[in-house]
Amino acid sequence: MIHIIRRERFNSAHRLFRQEWSDEKNLQVFGSCSNPNWHGHNYILYVTIKGNINPETGFVVNLKDLSKLINKKIIDKVDHKNLNVEVGFMKNKIVSSENIAIAFWEQLEEDVKNLGAELHCVKLVETENNFVEYFG
Amino acid sequence: MIHIIRRERFNSAHRLFRQEWSDEKNLQVFGSCSNPNWHGHNYILYVTIKGNINPETGFVVNLKDLSKLINKKIIDKVDHKNLNVEVGFMKNKIVSSENIAIAFWEQLEEDVKNLGAELHCVKLVETENNFVEYFG
Amino acid sequence: MIHIIRRERFNSAHRLFRQEWSDEKNLQVFGSCSNPNWHGHNYILYVTIKGNINPETGFVVNLKDLSKLINKKIIDKVDHKNLNVEVGFMKNKIVSSENIAIAFWEQLEEDVKNLGAELHCVKLVETENNFVEYFG
Amino acid sequence: MIHIIRRERFNSAHRLFRQEWSDEKNLQVFGSCSNPNWHGHNYILYVTIKGNINPETGFVVNLKDLSKLINKKIIDKVDHKNLNVEVGFMKNKIVSSENIAIAFWEQLEEDVKNLGAELHCVKLVETENNFVEYFG
Amino acid sequence: MIHIIRRERFNSAHRLFRQEWSDEKNLQVFGSCSNPNWHGHNYILYVTIKGNINPETGFVVNLKDLSKLINKKIIDKVDHKNLNVEVGFMKNKIVSSENIAIAFWEQLEEDVKNLGAELHCVKLVETENNFVEYFG
Amino acid sequence: MIHIIRRERFNSAHRLFRQEWSDEKNLQVFGSCSNPNWHGHNYILYVTIKGNINPETGFVVNLKDLSKLINKKIIDKVDHKNLNVEVGFMKNKIVSSENIAIAFWEQLEEDVKNLGAELHCVKLVETENNFVEYFG
Repeated sequence: MIHIIRRERFNSAHRLFRQEWSDEKNLQVFGSCSNPNWHGHNYILYVTIKGNINPETGFVVNLKDLSKLINKKIIDKVDHKNLNVEVGFMKNKIVSSENIAIAFWEQLEEDVKNLGAELHCVKLVETENNFVEYFG
Repeated sequence: MIHIIRRERFNSAHRLFRQEWSDEKNLQVFGSCSNPNWHGHNYILYVTIKGNINPETGFVVNLKDLSKLINKKIIDKVDHKNLNVEVGFMKNKIVSSENIAIAFWEQLEEDVKNLGAELHCVKLVETENNFVEYFG
Repeated sequence: MIHIIRRERFNSAHRLFRQEWSDEKNLQVFGSCSNPNWHGHNYILYVTIKGNINPETGFVVNLKDLSKLINKKIIDKVDHKNLNVEVGFMKNKIVSSENIAIAFWEQLEEDVKNLGAELHCVKLVETENNFVEYFG
Repeated sequence: MIHIIRRERFNSAHRLFRQEWSDEKNLQVFGSCSNPNWHGHNYILYVTIKGNINPETGFVVNLKDLSKLINKKIIDKVDHKNLNVEVGFMKNKIVSSENIAIAFWEQLEEDVKNLGAELHCVKLVETENNFVEYFG
Repeated sequence: MIHIIRRERFNSAHRLFRQEWSDEKNLQVFGSCSNPNWHGHNYILYVTIKGNINPETGFVVNLKDLSKLINKKIIDKVDHKNLNVEVGFMKNKIVSSENIAIAFWEQLEEDVKNLGAELHCVKLVETENNFVEYFG
Repeated sequence: MIHIIRRERFNSAHRLFRQEWSDEKNLQVFGSCSNPNWHGHNYILYVTIKGNINPETGFVVNLKDLSKLINKKIIDKVDHKNLNVEVGFMKNKIVSSENIAIAFWEQLEEDVKNLGAELHCVKLVETENNFVEYFG
């Protein structure tokens, strides 16, 4: 059993807010992150999967295949997009790093199994100081 | 004469587009950067100033004073903001890294003189692969 | 259950030595790290906490609150300080990265509970080549 | 119980291929990584060991001793070398990051015990986007 | 006049040696970099171009076009290749970072002019400690 | 003519203050950097030299020779030292990054000439946000 990790990146706009709250309440809870005109990030995503090594290839999974999967299921849907408005799997959710990481996990979990491995960790870097890690 | 450099960061939404062009034309020229729903970045800003060392302090300028200046004239106006919509000094400009860097130069030039030094370079990092440097 | 991580930094002087040992013995065991005139580091601290997501906010804990806590209980006490001489919670301890990390854990553990989460890991980066991780 | 981590680096040539396969089959499975004329990497290695703190020194193990061990058992054998051709412990193995990490684990495991600690993780960074982690 | 910079990466094998010298002489001058079985690097390339901003686009040159150019003229020819054996523009040259940077300059200079800008700097990062910069 | 750059690192204690000023005056001008009990940094040093390429070696100067020079004239004297107290070439100077960079320039200038090249830039990174560059 060994872990392999693929890093991918995407640049998105987002906003933290609850629709049923006033702008003042949103500002009080979420600070400048609730700006109604949006702000954005260069998000960095680390996907860790675990599995046994295929003795024919020396790979758990070819990292190019993992990269393709992450791009198809996540990056193509979020890169240069507004995470609140344009991303189906974030609809009706608060677009916090925690909720993004869990949604990414749900996007990937089944397909990683189909690659013959198991999803282990989704790590999302929002800024150089703030990260989340989700282990399912 | 010596150079000192201060790094600051800000997270903003933006969009590349010309209002008089159709969405198709904007998409053709600017690609996904023209997304009408915005995207965003963790911008990194490096401000270089040059001057003589004050023999009393060993400083060209106290970097804390330079940091305060950059925050007052730039970061407070752009961080967690929409660069197209909310930033006075970007109004009616295409919000490319080139134009942002020049606008930042104009924000800082006089005030750096008032600190007793000279603005030398504004470097803006949009992504880990794309940067601009403006020398006035 | 999800992990969130906050990065903070501090710049301190320190020295590795045992008071009851001679300078020669200290030099033999700790090398140049025992220099009686001190040396120092740009320490980087990663604090990981874990908990359930508050469905109202999408947060385990607002990372700004975690940052405030780390600053109040740690950074304000160690930044631009001499870790051997000026930091109460390091008194009578060898100021190794291991011991610093454990002392930081003790500083944070209760207060993280009061934020509604659980301390998971204190990671301390002393140089780009040397780190410790403490899990309680 | 606490974890300490040492980072080391090495620059090597390698190639992914199975000798019994044709060049076409190798190219199909391994892509450009199977180039018969080799390519190479600046590998980064993170070795994590765990143990109890020696109360005399404040160390699990002196990181200089861990560094010496990693250099003797690994770096001296792989740095500025061809991993397929010149490294005894990689003979008859596919030189994937997975297999390298496991071979490094085998190189270190006993000697880390002799230092009075336990090997916890071998992390190998092949590129800024591709990593493996092996926990034994 | 403003500078824009594009970062690209490639992974290659190489060797420093003079064919007319013995292995001993090569070893004495080039050290382990002359290993006859090759070694390799994750090279990082920074290409800086300068020019006037096109008022229609806000760009000196669209960085995607610069990226395409660098990939066509350089990356496609060197990535996952042996720089000594497989790269036409390095034939009969010592494959030092200095000579690579100059050869890259020659590959790009005319085409950058055709993009409407001027090549300013080719920076090549061989390891985290060793770089070269060529300004023509 | 081409530039080559070598990165080196050192960990030191220092303090910003003028002996003839009171502690209050020092605190007012230099802030927490004047702490009488010292603080410290992981300094990063980039030395750029320029020269013509030796056609026999493909080098301006072997970077290993440049590294040895920087270590002999600088790193051995400042690493794990107190910059105010133990470094001859900083005596009677305010230990600001500006003054350190200039003193390093003076340490290196002649010896770089003896290597057959010319010193171009000394860049000193004090923290991830604060740098100086000296060009002589």
